[in-house]
Amino acid sequence: MQTQFDPPSGTRDFLAAELEEREQAFGIIRSVFLRYGFEPLQTPAFERLDVLLGKYGDEGDKLVFKILRRGEHEASGEADLALRYDMTVPLARVAAAHGSQLPSPYKRYAMGPVWRADRPGKGRFREFVQCDLDTLGSASLLADAEALCAQHDALAELGLDDFTIQLNSRRVLSGLLEAFKVPAELGTGVLTSLDKLDKLSPGEVVAELAGRGLAEAEAAELVTMMTAPDAVDRIRAALKPSEEGVAGLDEVDGMLSLVFPQVPQGRVVFTPRMVRGLSYYTGPIWEVRAPGVPGSIGSGGRYDHLIEHLGGPDTPATGSSLGVERILSLRPASAASRRGRLDVAVTIMGEELARESFSIAGAARSAGLRASVYLGSSGKLGRQLKWASDQGARWCLIYGSSEQQAGAVTVRDMVSGEQAQVPLDDIGGYLARAAAVAGA
Amino acid sequence: MQTQFDPPSGTRDFLAAELEEREQAFGIIRSVFLRYGFEPLQTPAFERLDVLLGKYGDEGDKLVFKILRRGEHEASGEADLALRYDMTVPLARVAAAHGSQLPSPYKRYAMGPVWRADRPGKGRFREFVQCDLDTLGSASLLADAEALCAQHDALAELGLDDFTIQLNSRRVLSGLLEAFKVPAELGTGVLTSLDKLDKLSPGEVVAELAGRGLAEAEAAELVTMMTAPDAVDRIRAALKPSEEGVAGLDEVDGMLSLVFPQVPQGRVVFTPRMVRGLSYYTGPIWEVRAPGVPGSIGSGGRYDHLIEHLGGPDTPATGSSLGVERILSLRPASAASRRGRLDVAVTIMGEELARESFSIAGAARSAGLRASVYLGSSGKLGRQLKWASDQGARWCLIYGSSEQQAGAVTVRDMVSGEQAQVPLDDIGGYLARAAAVAGA
Repeated sequence: MQTQFDPPSGTRDFLAAELEEREQAFGIIRSVFLRYGFEPLQTPAFERLDVLLGKYGDEGDKLVFKILRRGEHEASGEADLALRYDMTVPLARVAAAHGSQLPSPYKRYAMGPVWRADRPGKGRFREFVQCDLDTLGSASLLADAEALCAQHDALAELGLDDFTIQLNSRRVLSGLLEAFKVPAELGTGVLTSLDKLDKLSPGEVVAELAGRGLAEAEAAELVTMMTAPDAVDRIRAALKPSEEGVAGLDEVDGMLSLVFPQVPQGRVVFTPRMVRGLSYYTGPIWEVRAPGVPGSIGSGGRYDHLIEHLGGPDTPATGSSLGVERILSLRPASAASRRGRLDVAVTIMGEELARESFSIAGAARSAGLRASVYLGSSGKLGRQLKWASDQGARWCLIYGSSEQQAGAVTVRDMVSGEQAQVPLDDIGGYLARAAAVAGA
Repeated sequence: MQTQFDPPSGTRDFLAAELEEREQAFGIIRSVFLRYGFEPLQTPAFERLDVLLGKYGDEGDKLVFKILRRGEHEASGEADLALRYDMTVPLARVAAAHGSQLPSPYKRYAMGPVWRADRPGKGRFREFVQCDLDTLGSASLLADAEALCAQHDALAELGLDDFTIQLNSRRVLSGLLEAFKVPAELGTGVLTSLDKLDKLSPGEVVAELAGRGLAEAEAAELVTMMTAPDAVDRIRAALKPSEEGVAGLDEVDGMLSLVFPQVPQGRVVFTPRMVRGLSYYTGPIWEVRAPGVPGSIGSGGRYDHLIEHLGGPDTPATGSSLGVERILSLRPASAASRRGRLDVAVTIMGEELARESFSIAGAARSAGLRASVYLGSSGKLGRQLKWASDQGARWCLIYGSSEQQAGAVTVRDMVSGEQAQVPLDDIGGYLARAAAVAGA
């Protein structure tokens, strides 16, 4: 049940500690993507309704947040805008709108919130961050390999070390259908059933395939092959007669060769039964799996005709997407979040001393430190020291009437408890030196 | 007129160069705010409709983007959510929701898009970034002074050097009304008219004041005083008999004393006729003006009862807001945006050499450089060198069959045109050293 002041269902308020964790992770991802020569793109939070609708299927369309028309049109109850549902449709629009201004190939990343009116649940939000990189305008397998390597490096630099990248090719799957003489109209359904071999027993999948119209003997042979201990070898052999299948194997082997040793041995695994968003992929496809996490934490693939289908130019394209919300939940808590809010806390020991205390805080900031004066109403030193400690301050600067007379500041080291008297006009320099020592 | 692929009216696509300029500016602002001990807060893009409506007046309510209900309720044409209109209402909600978790005082900044269905125009957008800092829970003038200083430092670090901060106090204005015996019911109107002394002639303002019901002689005296060369002195004298006026002057003088010398002499100017969003301010108020820019580029003030009025707890509060979209247009273009997309561009001189070229790019990235292989289809060196140059690459790495035989890479310095042969296994080290030299 929501209380009156909770954020809307499926959304979150990020207070400082969590937000800083997230921003730090996004910064790591961003730096990896930049290192691969991807450039950032930011599109508006909403698009015109006609740009979005019809692009995500009927189920997707229902999850789009629509924005009511305004002014005199509000009463019509009609929508004309809708919140961004993913990063791919806006990319297609940008490619159409700014095509000639964009470098070719156009390597871009996009990191930002998207909105889906899904039923909220554990780890499932209505506002969540998507983090995509895509290359438009290159048919080269090198572009696919870059997308996979950049994704791998981002996960590794985020501190994840236990994950596997399942690799396949859409053309391997087409080759399999060809080799087993599956009628074209059954193809999609057959692959959808094979994709369930993770969750269902072989017998259940055979039954499902038979239900779809495949001969039972053929269905059993296919499932036996795909679940055999030497499945990969048997599939490689079965694909030999299919031109499409051989081309798919070449893609898979090409990818495996390109990404090694940048991606360590064994982390990318040819997984012929991995199907993934079959409808629009045209070449290599991959999914990142982490133990204990249902579904994937990242994915990618080549989708050579999708941009045109979405209203953009006809261009070869490949890309990858990180499931950042899931990834964030797998990350070990970083040291960054345990850092205090302030380096320097400055007491206010009476109104007549406030001006100089405020100026002392300014001197600490000029020395590059995070500093603030006490803003509460208590004149008690103990209370103000507690505030300094709550802020995680490394130093508390005490400026009372005796300090004023001495033209000095008492600097209390909040870790050791030691105190030093520092001349007022040297306080910035003193703190800069102390910070250099503490940081070293 | 919009073309089919433009972003929605009043919104913008940010391609890399402009986006990086913006992000760099936001980074500067963020670092200043952190240095003052403000912590970040991020709230959802939308709020429940009842949280937003009725908070911005009738005119404001019309500018709220409302989100249609979903599923079976969509046909009702009703809205239940709305896009964030500012950062203050969400702050009030967060203070109510997370009160006990928040530090006291709660010093937070918020930087992110807000949405208003205003008529788009030059420099006026429907999606634009707001950048606020606020302190909840402190009645101290030090908190007001911090908000003003942090705003000043952010503007200075953004490279702006020609701006003035007009300072006043709500209580100075109340004192003026009291001194001139303006009936309480006329107060707001009188101040609104006085605020127009920038745009209208003194005579026009006198006429407007008379129209509001003020005696013409009194109106003339008030306007004469406020437009006199020694207006500030005359107003100080006029406020002497008013307790409220004297308290206001104390606030103004206290602020002027606190912020100097952190804010240089002359940059903050007591401006008694500056009125600013009168309705909810309760103490010091200020506005940042830059020559040639209509309106303000920043503002701030104390608003002790607003958070409660907006549904939050009853808490003293003060804060400031930067008009970042205007500020960005005033900023000199930074050097950052002229940096190339890549440090290292690697050629692909034939399919059989692609694997090693891809690996060479990986070695450059491991050396901390931004690197990419050529993803196009041309095998011509000239074409690939042009691509390297378009990317702004400092080095182009050429790996052809002669290099393969020599176990080396040709490194071309794109600035000097000089080329060097570097052993394949030293390429990472070579580039790291060259980058250190180039960066020095």
